[in-house]
Amino acid sequence: MAVRVQPINCTLKVEGDSSTDAMIDVLRKAFKGIGAQVEPTLRMAALNIKPGVTSDEGEGDDWPAARERILAADVLVFGTPIWMGQPSSLAKRVMERMDAFLSETDGQGRMPSYGKVVLCAIVGNEDGAHASSALIFQALNDVGWTIPAIAACYWVGEAMGSTDFKDLKTVPEMVDKTARMAATNAAHLAGLLKTSPFPGAGG
Amino acid sequence: MAVRVQPINCTLKVEGDSSTDAMIDVLRKAFKGIGAQVEPTLRMAALNIKPGVTSDEGEGDDWPAARERILAADVLVFGTPIWMGQPSSLAKRVMERMDAFLSETDGQGRMPSYGKVVLCAIVGNEDGAHASSALIFQALNDVGWTIPAIAACYWVGEAMGSTDFKDLKTVPEMVDKTARMAATNAAHLAGLLKTSPFPGAGG
Amino acid sequence: MAVRVQPINCTLKVEGDSSTDAMIDVLRKAFKGIGAQVEPTLRMAALNIKPGVTSDEGEGDDWPAARERILAADVLVFGTPIWMGQPSSLAKRVMERMDAFLSETDGQGRMPSYGKVVLCAIVGNEDGAHASSALIFQALNDVGWTIPAIAACYWVGEAMGSTDFKDLKTVPEMVDKTARMAATNAAHLAGLLKTSPFPGAGG
Amino acid sequence: MAVRVQPINCTLKVEGDSSTDAMIDVLRKAFKGIGAQVEPTLRMAALNIKPGVTSDEGEGDDWPAARERILAADVLVFGTPIWMGQPSSLAKRVMERMDAFLSETDGQGRMPSYGKVVLCAIVGNEDGAHASSALIFQALNDVGWTIPAIAACYWVGEAMGSTDFKDLKTVPEMVDKTARMAATNAAHLAGLLKTSPFPGAGG
Repeated sequence: MAVRVQPINCTLKVEGDSSTDAMIDVLRKAFKGIGAQVEPTLRMAALNIKPGVTSDEGEGDDWPAARERILAADVLVFGTPIWMGQPSSLAKRVMERMDAFLSETDGQGRMPSYGKVVLCAIVGNEDGAHASSALIFQALNDVGWTIPAIAACYWVGEAMGSTDFKDLKTVPEMVDKTARMAATNAAHLAGLLKTSPFPGAGG
Repeated sequence: MAVRVQPINCTLKVEGDSSTDAMIDVLRKAFKGIGAQVEPTLRMAALNIKPGVTSDEGEGDDWPAARERILAADVLVFGTPIWMGQPSSLAKRVMERMDAFLSETDGQGRMPSYGKVVLCAIVGNEDGAHASSALIFQALNDVGWTIPAIAACYWVGEAMGSTDFKDLKTVPEMVDKTARMAATNAAHLAGLLKTSPFPGAGG
Repeated sequence: MAVRVQPINCTLKVEGDSSTDAMIDVLRKAFKGIGAQVEPTLRMAALNIKPGVTSDEGEGDDWPAARERILAADVLVFGTPIWMGQPSSLAKRVMERMDAFLSETDGQGRMPSYGKVVLCAIVGNEDGAHASSALIFQALNDVGWTIPAIAACYWVGEAMGSTDFKDLKTVPEMVDKTARMAATNAAHLAGLLKTSPFPGAGG
Repeated sequence: MAVRVQPINCTLKVEGDSSTDAMIDVLRKAFKGIGAQVEPTLRMAALNIKPGVTSDEGEGDDWPAARERILAADVLVFGTPIWMGQPSSLAKRVMERMDAFLSETDGQGRMPSYGKVVLCAIVGNEDGAHASSALIFQALNDVGWTIPAIAACYWVGEAMGSTDFKDLKTVPEMVDKTARMAATNAAHLAGLLKTSPFPGAGG
């Protein structure tokens, strides 16, 4: 039973080429190379992810459907561009919507995210990748996600640079190597947790 | 000439009571006590602040008008609730829109924010105030804001608590004291920079 | 084969009662309750952890022995007090010493930390727990540690408070509950990875 | 009366060439170019900065003398290398020692740092500058430092790179430009606050 991977892209742009997509594609290839099933990317800017901290913010809210797709997978590839040295506002919004997991526990105290693993795909013209992975790891772990070894696949250019990852002629070798390791670790861990779920610890 | 203060509230809620408003009001009172002119609060959730990193994202974008009010003041009170231990997604969106300042410099390389000072008003049920002020300070300083001594006025309850600041019977003495110091420092510094602007350093 | 847990305490104090120890003890009890073997805590301030980013900084360096004990366990309980809203300088030093893992990979590209899981025990008088877990998660994940669901067990008092965790009359119920869940998740995950190690992805 | 600048270097190395020194020298030149008086750099690794949160940790502690030199200046250039995407452990230690300022207020509630401004000089092989400036701004602002517009002068190479700033053949134009702006802003603000100190707000 193949591990199922759901990428999301939190670029601010509704459409058009996205460097975050380019990084997600590097991970997509790595996951496919080890037999994982990778779903089409959810582009959050093209959906109406309403502000709020519940799982359904009412009419017109696209989060319930996105949430379902995310939770149907074993691995979440959380893609975000860096803006102001930090994850995008759309990335933050997605994290906020998962705050609802805290009150959606089962009889063993387990949130819907338990047993699922997350991987970050982070790109920017320049510095901010570590700040971004720190914030994503903390927020998602707080709401039940597990983080496999080497769970951040990122690229940024030299300080104060303006090159886009999508415009690089080739994927840097270190990025490609990191992507293969990150995908392997994530798939391995998701597989283990699928077979042997966290037992939970009371309600 | 009184120092002019513009508070913004980045709560996720379009309307209704807001703990962030309650904290902004503590600062409002402190500013009024020293003769500053405090404008009505801009509630970002009630506006359509479009995603993007320019100063005008086109039809329906309420940022241009909000931007104008923010830049008409000498002091920005940046109010945000804590969600997931971090500033709200709306707070991040406002910061992103200020990324445009980087390319809006005058002949001396000065951004529209030069000479203006920022103060944070941060509230949450629990932990995350320092994480929030760190992110706000870094992002806003990168785009030209000056940060006076003691520029974070915050309240959070005990770890994993659920009390709202707006429901406290009285404002804690330490919050009140911090607000008075923060307002005094901000008004003093804004006054100095109004009279003696940063000279800039070339284009 | 019981899971082996190694707690470390990064308090700044060489000796005496430590709130970080009090939190580690909450986790110790939780781990023992599920049959894990918990080693005596390594108090970093009582050792000479030299500055540097290698695994042995020469004469008098106590890191090589501490490193050996940490890597002999399956779970690391990373205990730190909050100072200035952030982990202690000693916590940062311990993280820096693990930077060496990056060049200590085996033939499959796996660092010595692969397959091991980390849990944070964080205490402070006030705010800073989320900022601390974000920094610890990011730094340790970068050097190969895996982070199980709910990997931060923390306590802080109300904003700008001065109560010490060690002086609380009883452990708050939420802390106790979190500790039991965190320990259960960590032990479960460490057990899985012990039996089925990460395969790695080339040298 | 010339503005007085005190640089500190929080490299982990006791001696030898330091990229952080190279960045401090860029700022030194910029400050000298506008007539400021720049003191010799305090290399923290060469001193015995004891762990703790008081202004004097007893016998052998070099902090009291370092503290005196820092407070004798109007501008602090806080230099740190990036390790694990974050400021060095020595940088954190220096920040911790300033925690004591909180209880060293005068009759108007002003800490010894009031009226003084701070500038960051941050270098790393790769990503982590924004994470570092966020942490430094937050910690130092909490203990009374003022942060002028554009207070982080940094350089990092491309993601996962290994080039040292000190080995660059020339200082990148953007770094040089930023340094001149940062120095100009810092000196201007320090000058204003020297002439017109923060009034404080009660004890």
